[in-house]
Parts: sequence; structure tokens; C-alpha cells
Amino acid sequence: MKSFVEYGPDCDFPIENLPYGVFSTNDNPKKRIGVAIGDEILDLSAISHLFNGPLLEKHQNVFQQDCLNDFMSLGRPAWIEARLILQNLLSVDNSTLQHNEIRSKAFVSQKAATMHLPAKIGDYTDFYSSIHHARNVGIMFRSEENALMPNWKYLPVGYHGRASSVVVSGTPIRRPWGQTLPVEGAEPAFCPSRLMDFELEVAIFVGGPPTNLGDTITAKKAYAHIFGMVTMNDWSARDIQKWEYVPLGPFGSKNLGTTISPWIVTMEALEPFKVPNYPQDPKPFSYLQHEEPCNFDIHLEVDIKPPGGVVTTITRSNYKFMYWTPQQQLAHHTVTGCNINPGDLMASGTISGDTANSYGSMLELCWKGTKTIPMKDGTTRKFLQDNDEVIIRGYCLGQGYRIGFGPCAGKLLPAHPA
Amino acid sequence: MKSFVEYGPDCDFPIENLPYGVFSTNDNPKKRIGVAIGDEILDLSAISHLFNGPLLEKHQNVFQQDCLNDFMSLGRPAWIEARLILQNLLSVDNSTLQHNEIRSKAFVSQKAATMHLPAKIGDYTDFYSSIHHARNVGIMFRSEENALMPNWKYLPVGYHGRASSVVVSGTPIRRPWGQTLPVEGAEPAFCPSRLMDFELEVAIFVGGPPTNLGDTITAKKAYAHIFGMVTMNDWSARDIQKWEYVPLGPFGSKNLGTTISPWIVTMEALEPFKVPNYPQDPKPFSYLQHEEPCNFDIHLEVDIKPPGGVVTTITRSNYKFMYWTPQQQLAHHTVTGCNINPGDLMASGTISGDTANSYGSMLELCWKGTKTIPMKDGTTRKFLQDNDEVIIRGYCLGQGYRIGFGPCAGKLLPAHPA
Repeated sequence: MKSFVEYGPDCDFPIENLPYGVFSTNDNPKKRIGVAIGDEILDLSAISHLFNGPLLEKHQNVFQQDCLNDFMSLGRPAWIEARLILQNLLSVDNSTLQHNEIRSKAFVSQKAATMHLPAKIGDYTDFYSSIHHARNVGIMFRSEENALMPNWKYLPVGYHGRASSVVVSGTPIRRPWGQTLPVEGAEPAFCPSRLMDFELEVAIFVGGPPTNLGDTITAKKAYAHIFGMVTMNDWSARDIQKWEYVPLGPFGSKNLGTTISPWIVTMEALEPFKVPNYPQDPKPFSYLQHEEPCNFDIHLEVDIKPPGGVVTTITRSNYKFMYWTPQQQLAHHTVTGCNINPGDLMASGTISGDTANSYGSMLELCWKGTKTIPMKDGTTRKFLQDNDEVIIRGYCLGQGYRIGFGPCAGKLLPAHPA
Repeated sequence: MKSFVEYGPDCDFPIENLPYGVFSTNDNPKKRIGVAIGDEILDLSAISHLFNGPLLEKHQNVFQQDCLNDFMSLGRPAWIEARLILQNLLSVDNSTLQHNEIRSKAFVSQKAATMHLPAKIGDYTDFYSSIHHARNVGIMFRSEENALMPNWKYLPVGYHGRASSVVVSGTPIRRPWGQTLPVEGAEPAFCPSRLMDFELEVAIFVGGPPTNLGDTITAKKAYAHIFGMVTMNDWSARDIQKWEYVPLGPFGSKNLGTTISPWIVTMEALEPFKVPNYPQDPKPFSYLQHEEPCNFDIHLEVDIKPPGGVVTTITRSNYKFMYWTPQQQLAHHTVTGCNINPGDLMASGTISGDTANSYGSMLELCWKGTKTIPMKDGTTRKFLQDNDEVIIRGYCLGQGYRIGFGPCAGKLLPAHPA
């Protein structure tokens, strides 16, 4: 497959990718839906009339919206039809979009665009599905023997997060004030968080029609409800989290901001990178069982860029380390009858690999503060410092091309003064 | 104050109340905003042109929406202006709405109306702010000495709930399937929940303009962001909850459905029922401190109506037992920088009184299954049975009038077959 839009082999957005996003420009501040190709964006609002296949012909208006929810609601057959039309339109062999007038009208440089959240996120859920991460946290805070909680291998543990504070890559995050317990058994303190961390995650966007309260989706049928994926940084204030989270889970330590990459990479683009599901023992309950793989070889990296600008890649992990698949997460999410909507965001939880240089959080990399992490500028880290920028990258390596997620970045601003 | 709409002294909706809701009728399926008065609804979409005060004159369109979010966003001075206009229009001394034509056009019988969720709930949060409830749960699952967790008196513990599964009174709730641990230390089971419970709660709807990520609201300033209150049933599957909730909090045991009463009682209507805040020791951190009372003498009752129809009021509690105020909840919710939006729902947590007949859940009333609860039809309960209808009622008793919330009701349907 070759596009008339030119790009190199390391480009995140070849014609095999075609991720969806929402953008605006200085010239036209209206939010609109686009697809990334090379270093350009194809503005779908300018070419919605070209989606003339049997499924999309009557739904061209979904490409005129300011978010992807309506397109997401159409379901996989429509998503596949859209992908085929787009790959055809962008092909070097198709002249439709290559004529000067439409070429300049329908394409925008990514540099000239401001990216927005790709969907109205009705609800956001965060799972805890990486076994190495769960085990690391368990060893640190309990013991090697009791590292995993008794429920962990029976169900994909997760919690409801805060949808309002999910922001798009590039949004600065403020170091929060909050309550912490500096000395065990003493009085808590109210101060800026001293243990700010990232969490390396990947999240799915839910698609398909809304379900009704009381309906369930088994893991076998859940793939139909997975539209695509983004990378995510679930910023975490570890000291606030530790003091607040018993018994109802993380709250203010997490709702200070959650960053996602702006481009949703579709499951169709990720299809060639499917790998076997993680072996599960004990065998999960029937509602969680599915045969077909829903695990992916997605390389994940975290860069930290301090104010001086010297970047250090401090961890390299991979999505394939997930114990629970997104299909299982969705099945568990709905098993008690919870209704889901297109645009819901469901995240993996921190994805840690099985080696000390592949952990998905500073908490694990510095092993609860007992190790220092060397930085290329000569400094060291245990947790994040003010004005550190955290950049998460995700990509799949194909033959001669790369399916990239684009950066998921955010800078940690200093806390407000007292 | 006397209205030309007639009602008795026990009516939930006198002219002193004027709660807001969203309704439709068979004749006109369009969702529209109304105010309850007697056993009628004043359709604000039919009289929006009468909101001609200095603040609302330019915002009459908020009464033409299908939800209250835009009106909520305007803030307290506008809400007070609307209330004064409505009390004036509904007064026996004002003839504007009494003329035959507008009287029949602008009023709808509550019996003829279908109620809907009053707002688009962007995010839903549930706190845990009743000290008697928290202590009861602590005694049952830990011990008298360690009943309250160390953080409980320092911060209003809360968690993010599922917004999509909040439903309006009257919506049936399905007994869920889920994972439970019937025997401690043995294998979990997958079966319908055997321990279905209600939680007697009151929730605030957030108002005022949206805040930005990174902004905080101190308790002193939080009242400006409280639009009004509803009663709530936070349906809970206790056996599922127990197995799933460590370490990230309740999930599937709660997202199976949360019922709210359809009418939002404004803080202005509740003003005469303010009582002193619950005494707090230790003194909370400065961001949680506020002098003025934000506690209310709201009588709360729970009826259970089994299929036979014989109703038993199984508990009588009161909002005044809340340890943390809604202003403190809001301050804590935003202290780490979480942004809030008009239409957000923030609930009290189960409100239990200080006596065994005033507890806010079956879990406490049956003391973890060790007591039976007698019913008027001769049966007994520990937890809810299939087809039990749970009806929560809330009301304040004024001199010669009553500020009621209307019922918050829902029937528990049997689980889906295997």
C-alpha cells in the first residue's frame, strides 16, 4: 500500500494506520474530525460526501460532528468500510484527492493543528491488568508471598475514574496539594505532593451502540465494542494516594489529570500485531473466556524531558504484558449490568514488563524510593520534578512501516503557592 | 405564601419548594424543564419569556433545553431570581398564569408526566460521610476499636462512581450476576448476587460555571457550586462488593444502577431547615473549614413494598447525621485540582442515624445477616428479595408546609436465568 502523501518508514502515521482525531486550526477554530497521514491531517468534514458505501452513505453526517462518538456508535462493519474508503482515497493510484483544489482544502499540516479530545468521554474506567505491575506493587506494600490479592487472577480489577479530568496530550498538569501521612501513625499533613508519578497505560475507546442497563456483554462478543486505542498517562500523586485509598480506592491522587494521545489507532490497524493472549491460570469464569487473541505487540516507551531539554527514555515496556485482555475487561465491566456508551474510555492500568528497566511507573523504577534513576543530563530522579515533561510513545513495527500512536505528553507544573 | 394551585399541608411540593425536573408527556414526547407545584408541573418551556429579570432576561433559552445543565451553570444569583419570579407567578395574588388559556397550556398533571434524569450527569461521585454508617461498617468488618479508618476524620472519603448507570426513580433494577466468595479462602463462585441491598443517600447537583483543571474551591466558597439536592438509592450487591473491592474500591457491585428522585430541591427551599454542622474533632485542615451551617434537618425514610403490596417503613434516618458537609465534600473533591461541571452529581454515602432503627442499609439493619427484619406482611428480610420495591422518601417539616423530595423508587427484578 502506498499513499500519494509522502512520509518516511519511521512515520507514526502511514496509510496502514489512519488513526482518527479531532482538530481545529487558527484559520478555522471549528472542531472537526480528521485522520492522520504522514505529517498531515485529512479533514473528513471536507470529504464526508465521499463516504458513499452501503453502510456510511446514510451516515455521512457523523463526519460533520465535533467528536467521534457518533461514528463510534456505528459499529465495526461501518468502521471497516470507512477504512477501506480512506485507504482507497489516499492511495497513490487514486486521483480524487490529488487534484490541486481539494488537495489544499482537505489536508492540513499537523503542525498547524490544535488537537482536542477525540470523543466526549461519558465515563472513564481504569483497570489494573498488568500482572508485573500488580505483583511489583504487592511486593513493595505487602510481601512476595502475598503480592497478588486473592481476587486478582479471577477478575480484572478496576475502578471508576474521573472523566472530566481526562485531557489531551500537551495539556500541562499542576502538582497538587493534598493530604499525606509523612510519618506512619502520626498526624497527616496538607502540602504539595512530593511523590508525583506517571503511569504508562493504553486505553480503549468503546464503540458500537449504547447498551441498556441490565445488559451484559460476554468476552466472546466484546470485540465488537472496541473501537480503537490511545496511549495514556494516569498521573498519580503517590503520597496522597497512600493516605486516601483505603477503603474506597484512589480519588484525589488520580483526578488531578489523565492525559491521552490525541489519535485513536483503530483495531483494524492493530490487527497485524496481535499476539497470543497471556496464559491464565486459573481458567477464568465462562463470561471472561474468549479464544481469539486480543493482545498486541505494542512497544511502549516513556521519555522524561527536564527543563534543560535533554531527554531520557526511562522505561521500555510493551502492551503484550497484559494479563487481562480488553475483551475481558469489557465483559467484567458489564457483567453486573452496567451500561456502556460509545466514547467511554477504559484503560489498562500501568503496564510493566518483567524486567527492572521495563516498569511502567516511577514508583516501580525507583522501587518505592530505594533506587535513583539516572538521567542523561546528569541529574537523577526518584519521582517527577517540577517542569519535567513526560512523553509516552507507543508503536507497532510492521514490515517497512510503523503503526504509531503519536506522543502522549504533558508537563508537570509547580504546585500553586501556599 | 399561598399559590392559586391547590394542595394540602402534607403535599411535597408547596410554593415554598418549587423543585426542578425534566419531564415529557404522551401528547408531547419532547423533554422539557418543569417545576413541581401541588400535583401539577409548571412547564417552564411554555413560560420562558416571563423570566425577564436582569440576570435571566438574556438566558431565557436555558428553560428551552432538555436538561437543567445550562440553568445550573448560571449560578446562585440567577437561581434566586428564577425562584422569586416563579413564586410571584404562582402566587394567588398574581393573575398571569391563572387565565384559562395559559393555565391549561403551561400546567401538566404529574400523573400524566414521565420524569427523566434532570441533568446530563458528566461525573458522579459517592462519598462516605455519615459517621454512624462508617462506624457500623467498621465494627462489622473490623472491630469496635478500629471502626473508623485513620483517614476518615481527616478527609471526606469518597470514590468516583459510574455516571451512565444513574437512573431516575421508577426504573427497575436487575439483580446482577457476579463473582462472590461464599467460603473464605475457597474458590470464588459466579452466580446471582444473594445479598442485594439499598443505600439511603442524598446527593447534590453541582452548579455554577465549569471550573478548570488545576483550580480548587475551598469549603468557604463551595456553597456557590451547590444547586440543589435529590434523594438517592445506591443499590449495592454486598457479596460482589466484598470480593472485588480491595484494593481499588467498589466497582460492579455498584455500577448495576443508582436511582435518584426526579425533582431537584433547591438550596433556597432547604435554607429554613439548616441546622448546625456536625461537631468535628480533630479540626479539619483549612481548605475544609467553613463556619456557616451546611447541614439540614431532612427526614429520610425507606419503604419496602413486596409483591403483595403491604408496605413496611424499615428505617427512619435524617440528613443531619452527616459528619462532612457538601461544602467540605466539594472542597476535597477539587483540592488536587479536579475540575467540576454543572450537572455533576455528588452523593452523601449511606446516611445512618445513631439508633438501630435508623440505619441506612439492610447490611446494618440486619447487622451483617445476624438479625431478621420483620415486615408488615408477616415475612422477614435480611437482604432484598426479588420484586421488592424500595422507596426512599425525604422531607423537611416547616410550619404548615412540607418540603418534599417526592419518591425515589425502584423495583428489584430477578436475575437473568443462567
